[in-house]
Amino acid sequence: MLESLFYPDSVAVIGASRSPGKVGHDLFANLIQGGFTGPIVAINPTASEIMGHPSYPSLKAYGQQIDLCVIAVPQPLVEQAVHDAVDAGAGGIIIISAGFKEVDAAGAALEKKIADFCRRRQVRLVGPNCLGLLNTSSQLNASFAGNMPAVGSISIFSQSGALCTAILDLAASRHLGLQKVVSIGNKADISEVDLLLALGGDQQTKVIVGYLEDITNGDEFVKAAEEASTQKPVVILKSGTTMAGQKAAASHTGVLAGLDTAYGAAFKQSGIVRADAFEQLFDYATAFAMQPLPVGNRVLIITNAGGPGTMAADAVEKAGMVVAELDRNVATALRQELPAAASVGNPIDVLGDAPPARYAAALAAAQKDPEVDAILVILTPQAMTKAPETARAIAQTMTGDKPVLVSFMGGVEVMPGRAELAAASLPDYESPERAVGALKAMYEYSMWRNRPPRVVNRFRVHRRRVERIITRSQRIGRLQLSEVKSKTILKAYGFKIPRGQLAISTEEAVEIAERIGYPLAMKIVSPDVIHKSDLGGVKLDIANADQVRDAFDLMMLRIRERVPGARIEGVYVEKMLDRGLEIILGMSRDPQFGPMLMFGLGGIFVEVMKDVAFHLAPITFDEAMQMLLATRSYAMLEGKRGNKGVDIEAVAAGLQRISQLTTDFPQIAELDINPFIVGEMGSEPVVADARMTLRSPVE
Amino acid sequence: MLESLFYPDSVAVIGASRSPGKVGHDLFANLIQGGFTGPIVAINPTASEIMGHPSYPSLKAYGQQIDLCVIAVPQPLVEQAVHDAVDAGAGGIIIISAGFKEVDAAGAALEKKIADFCRRRQVRLVGPNCLGLLNTSSQLNASFAGNMPAVGSISIFSQSGALCTAILDLAASRHLGLQKVVSIGNKADISEVDLLLALGGDQQTKVIVGYLEDITNGDEFVKAAEEASTQKPVVILKSGTTMAGQKAAASHTGVLAGLDTAYGAAFKQSGIVRADAFEQLFDYATAFAMQPLPVGNRVLIITNAGGPGTMAADAVEKAGMVVAELDRNVATALRQELPAAASVGNPIDVLGDAPPARYAAALAAAQKDPEVDAILVILTPQAMTKAPETARAIAQTMTGDKPVLVSFMGGVEVMPGRAELAAASLPDYESPERAVGALKAMYEYSMWRNRPPRVVNRFRVHRRRVERIITRSQRIGRLQLSEVKSKTILKAYGFKIPRGQLAISTEEAVEIAERIGYPLAMKIVSPDVIHKSDLGGVKLDIANADQVRDAFDLMMLRIRERVPGARIEGVYVEKMLDRGLEIILGMSRDPQFGPMLMFGLGGIFVEVMKDVAFHLAPITFDEAMQMLLATRSYAMLEGKRGNKGVDIEAVAAGLQRISQLTTDFPQIAELDINPFIVGEMGSEPVVADARMTLRSPVE
Repeated sequence: MLESLFYPDSVAVIGASRSPGKVGHDLFANLIQGGFTGPIVAINPTASEIMGHPSYPSLKAYGQQIDLCVIAVPQPLVEQAVHDAVDAGAGGIIIISAGFKEVDAAGAALEKKIADFCRRRQVRLVGPNCLGLLNTSSQLNASFAGNMPAVGSISIFSQSGALCTAILDLAASRHLGLQKVVSIGNKADISEVDLLLALGGDQQTKVIVGYLEDITNGDEFVKAAEEASTQKPVVILKSGTTMAGQKAAASHTGVLAGLDTAYGAAFKQSGIVRADAFEQLFDYATAFAMQPLPVGNRVLIITNAGGPGTMAADAVEKAGMVVAELDRNVATALRQELPAAASVGNPIDVLGDAPPARYAAALAAAQKDPEVDAILVILTPQAMTKAPETARAIAQTMTGDKPVLVSFMGGVEVMPGRAELAAASLPDYESPERAVGALKAMYEYSMWRNRPPRVVNRFRVHRRRVERIITRSQRIGRLQLSEVKSKTILKAYGFKIPRGQLAISTEEAVEIAERIGYPLAMKIVSPDVIHKSDLGGVKLDIANADQVRDAFDLMMLRIRERVPGARIEGVYVEKMLDRGLEIILGMSRDPQFGPMLMFGLGGIFVEVMKDVAFHLAPITFDEAMQMLLATRSYAMLEGKRGNKGVDIEAVAAGLQRISQLTTDFPQIAELDINPFIVGEMGSEPVVADARMTLRSPVE
Repeated sequence: MLESLFYPDSVAVIGASRSPGKVGHDLFANLIQGGFTGPIVAINPTASEIMGHPSYPSLKAYGQQIDLCVIAVPQPLVEQAVHDAVDAGAGGIIIISAGFKEVDAAGAALEKKIADFCRRRQVRLVGPNCLGLLNTSSQLNASFAGNMPAVGSISIFSQSGALCTAILDLAASRHLGLQKVVSIGNKADISEVDLLLALGGDQQTKVIVGYLEDITNGDEFVKAAEEASTQKPVVILKSGTTMAGQKAAASHTGVLAGLDTAYGAAFKQSGIVRADAFEQLFDYATAFAMQPLPVGNRVLIITNAGGPGTMAADAVEKAGMVVAELDRNVATALRQELPAAASVGNPIDVLGDAPPARYAAALAAAQKDPEVDAILVILTPQAMTKAPETARAIAQTMTGDKPVLVSFMGGVEVMPGRAELAAASLPDYESPERAVGALKAMYEYSMWRNRPPRVVNRFRVHRRRVERIITRSQRIGRLQLSEVKSKTILKAYGFKIPRGQLAISTEEAVEIAERIGYPLAMKIVSPDVIHKSDLGGVKLDIANADQVRDAFDLMMLRIRERVPGARIEGVYVEKMLDRGLEIILGMSRDPQFGPMLMFGLGGIFVEVMKDVAFHLAPITFDEAMQMLLATRSYAMLEGKRGNKGVDIEAVAAGLQRISQLTTDFPQIAELDINPFIVGEMGSEPVVADARMTLRSPVE
C-alpha cells in the first residue's frame, strides 16, 4: 500500500533547481543526500545537470518510466506537471507547491480537479501545500524538511508542515530514530485515513504519531484508527479543541456537547492515545517504541532519593494508578542485597550512595515480582552517583517483560547516562511526573487492546413505523417533532411510554380519561407551542371527569389568547406516572462522527453540575454501562442513604435503543428523552417527555 | 538576617579531609573553587595543610574568630564540634553530618539538644543531614553539591538534598544563574520560615523557589510566605500530596477535606505559586526572574506557523485566559508591515518565511497595544528561518513593559537561537503549552499581588457564654456537643436558631409547645444517641398538643428499648422551619494550618457531587464570596429556572461568623451546620441542625 510513495523504484523532481534556498533545490539536495539508491531525475526547463544528476526539460524528454514524481513548480504549472507525471507512469505524486485550497476558491477548485484526475488514473497524491515525505527504511527524503533522521520505528504524519520540521529537528537533537514521516498538507487525496491504514500495516512502524487540525471523514477515520490501534499505538495531537463559536443546538444534548466532545469520544473509542501538548507526542511515542505494554496499573518506583520518589508516588496516584509494593518474599530477598538503611517498600530507596549494582538488584526484584506491572527508575546526581554505569546496569538487567521507564534528573552530571539509556532503548524523562504520564498512556492503551469484544445488540423494533413518521414530517417540513410523535417513535423502538391519546373535543377527552383511568396529565399538542408549561398548556394531577372538562376548555382558551394563530391539533390525555429517578438520555449528531449519545441525571445534575457522559453510537451494553459509571451521579443510580437503587441495566438498555434508532435513522438530528423515569429493579422505565428534531431533507 | 551564613567573614570546615570522595574533601574543595575571598580554615586532627590552606587540629588551636563553621564529622563528634564553633565566635553553623532525627529517637534527641544550645547562644544552624548552602553573590560554596552556578536572581531552598543537586545540575546545563541555594535538611533550627523571610528581604533575590515535604509550623509558614510573596514570587513544589491514610473525622467537613486541601488553601491564600511537577519549578522561576508581571490575562500569540499557533490558543483558553486580538488601529498599522498573506488576527501569523524584522514588527505592535497583557512568540524551524537573528530581533524590540515568553520549537536548528534568548533574559519553552503554563502562573500571582486589602469583620458576639459551655463540656469530658448546645453556641455568635426549649416531662413538652406554636419538631437529647432519626428520636410536623404527648411518650419508650442505658436529658421541642435552600457550613481543624472552613450545598451536592469549597480562617467577606463562587452549585444560590435566588451575602456572613468562632475558640475541633436553611433576600438564614466536637482538653 502506497508502495510508489514509500518505496519507489525511481524519483523525479519536477521543478528541481540549481539555486540554493529554492524549494526545488533543497528538495533535490535532500533526495541525493538521503542516499536513495534508485534513479534520481531532475526536470528543469534549462539545466542539463543538477548536482551531478542528469536534468531534462520534461519527463517526456527523459523518456523512461518514473515511479514517484515530486512537484515543486509554481501553482499555474502544477496541473500540467501532474499530467506529465501520470503519463510517465508515476504511481505516486507529491505536490509541494502551495496556492490551492488554503488560498481561495479557485485554488480549491483546481486542487479538486487535480485530485479527481489522479483518482481516476489510480495514482496516489500527497499534498498539495506540504513538505513532502521521508522514509528512512528506503533512504528516501522526498521533502525540503532538512536532514534525514536515523532509522527508527516511529512514523509520523502531520497536517502542519511547520510542526513536521519542529518534530524532525527535535528528533535530531535527541538522536531519536524515525521510520516514515509524511507532511499531508491539504489532503487532496491522501489523508490521515490512508496513513493510519498504511502505517498500521507497516512492519517497520511500531508507533504512529499524528498531528491533526481537522478530520476529513469521521466514519472512515474511526474505522481506520481502530484498525491501526489494534496493530500498534497511535498517538495523536489534535489542535483547535477549544476555539470556534458556540453551535446553535435545540437539544440539551447538543448544548452540553462541546466542540471537542465528539473528538474525545471518537479518539477514545478507536483506541487513539491522545496527546494534549506537544511534548507528550514524544514522551508517549518513545515509551511505546522502546518498551512493552504493562498488563496492569501497579507501578513500582526505584529511587536513590526520597523526595523525587515521593513526587513520583504522588504522580502515580494522581494518574489513577497504583503505587505497587513488592511481594513479601521478593522484598525479603532484596533486603539481603541492600544496605540496612535502604527501604524495600515503595518507593524502593536504594540510598544516595547507590552504586549501579544496587539499582540492578532492585530492578531484578521488581521484574520478577508478580505484584508489579511497570517500573519507574529515578536517579538524582549525588556525590557517589555514576550515571552512565547505572544506565548500563539497568539496561543489562532489563528483561523486556515489563515496561521500564527512567528519569535521570539533572543536567550536566546525568547527560552521559542519558546517552546510554537512549542507546539501550530505555525511555528517559526529565522528571518523574512526565515518566508517569507516559506510563499512564501505556496502561490505558493496554486496557483498550485488551477490551472485551464489542457486541452491539440489535433489538427487535418497528422500523417501518418510524420510517413513515419521519418521511411524512420531513415532507411537510415539520422538523421539530411533537412530544406525541417523538413518543410514538420511541415506542416503536421498544421504549415504554405512558398510556395516552389525543383528544380533539372536551367530550372525547373525558371519554379517553375514563378509559385510561386517573390521575391524568393533559398537554396541548401544537407545532407552534414549544414551551407548553410556561403558556398554560400542561395540567397535571387531574382526578376526575369534571377536571378533565375544565382543563380542556381552559387550555384552549389560554393558548388561543397567548399564542394567537397557533395550529392546535388537540390535547393529549395521558396517564400520570409513578415517581422515580429522573434521567436524561439524548443524542446530538456530530458533523464528523455522527450520532453522539448522552446520559445524565435530570434536573440540577445536568443543569447546574453538567454531570453528563457521551459516547458515539453504535454502543454496546458494556460501553453504555461505562457511560453511566463515568458520571459522579452514578451513585444516585445505585441508591443513596436508604433509597433503593434503580434498574441500572434498564438505563443502559435505553441508551442502546437510542443508539439503534439514531443509527438506523440519520434523519434524526437531535433527540432528548427528558425525563426518562427509572424505578427499582424489575420496573420498566418510562419516557415521561421527549423531543426530536429532524434534519432538513434537502441536506 | 542570616548574615553569618550567607555573607561570612571567614569559614572553617570542621572535618576537612585530604581524601577525594570524602564529604569533608569535596566540601573544602568546593569552598576553595567557589572563590570565597575571606580566610578558609581546615580543621582536621592530623593534617597541617589541605589543598594549600592551613589545617589545625581544632578551632582552639587556630585561635582566631570564625564566622561560619561547616561541620562534616561523624555524628558522635558533632555536638563537640558545635560547642567548639560557638566558642570560636561563629554566628552561623552548617551541620552536613547525618545520623539524627532521620534515623532514630536518640538521634532526634541529640539534634534537639544541639539546636536548643545554638538557640540559647543565638547562633543560627542549617541542617543537620543536609548538603550545605551556596551564595553566588559572596562566592560562597559551603556545600558538597558540586560546581558553583553563575550569579543569577533565583534563590532556592530544598528539603531534599538530592533534589537540590538535580536542580543545580539542571541549572548548570541550561546556563541558568542562581542566587542563594540552601539545603535545609532536618530543619533543626533554620526552616522554610526563616528562608522565606530572609530571601524575601534579600535584594539579590528576585524569585524564591522551594521544595518541601512537610512544614514545621503552619501559622508561621503562612505569615512568612505571605510576607515573602508580597515582595517577590515564591514558587513551591510540595510532595506527599496524595499519600497517607484517611484521617478519622467525625464531621462532613473533616471527611471531605483531603490531605492536600489545607496545603492548597494555605498556599493560595499566602500567594504561593504552586508547582505541580518538577519542571514547573524551572518553567515558572525563569519566567518570573526574566520578565515583568502581566496586568491582565489577554495573551497575544505571534507565530510563523498555523498549527503551533492553534496549539497555543487552545492552551490559553484551557488555562482560563483570553486569546487577545489587536486593537483595530494597531492591526491596520501592522498590516502595512507584513505580507498580504500574513494574518494580524490572533494568532498573528507572520508566515513560514518570516525574517526577523517581521517578528520585530509584530512584537512592537503587540507591546504598544492596550488590549494585550502578555505576548507569546512561537518560532518553528522552517527553510528560511533564522533562529538566532530572530532571537536578537525579539530581544532588541522588547521594551520590558509586558511579559514576553518564547517557544522556539525544535532541536538542532533552534539551539543557537535558544542561547541568544537566554542571554537576553527571554524565557524559552520547548512547547507553547509550557509557555502558557508559565504565563498563567504569572497572571495568577499578579492577581494575588493586586488583591484588595483584607478586612476581617469582627461581629459583636457573646464570647463569654460560649467560653462557659466549652469549658464545662471539656471538664466533664463531653467532647461531642449535643445539637442543643451546639445551637446555643452558634446563637451566641449571631446565628439565628429556631425557637425551642428542652422538656423533661410530657406535660412540660405540651406547655412549651403551646407557647412556641405549631408545627413543631421534637428531638431526643442524649449524649448517647448520635443518630437520632434512625433510632426514632426525631418527630416532625407535630400539629397539636395530643401529638406532642404521643411523640414524647413514644420517644422515651423507643430510645430506652433501642439504646439501653442511654442517659436521656429530655426532649427538645422546636419550631418547625419554613422551607429554603439547604446549605452546609463547616469547619475542620487542620493540624498545620488551623481552622479550615467549608461551604457546600446540602444533600446530593455534597454527598454525591463533593461540590465543596474550603478556605482557612480568618476569612474576609470577599474571600467568603469567592468560596461560594468556587462551587458549581453557586448557580443554585443565584436561582434557577424561575426559582428566586437566596440571600447570598447572608451565607457569606455565616462563614465569617464561623471563622470568628473557630478562631476565638481553638478548643473547637470540628463543626458542621447541616443544614443551614437559607431563604430569599432579606430573610434571615436559620441553623436547622448543628454539631460540634471539642478537642480533648489535655491536648
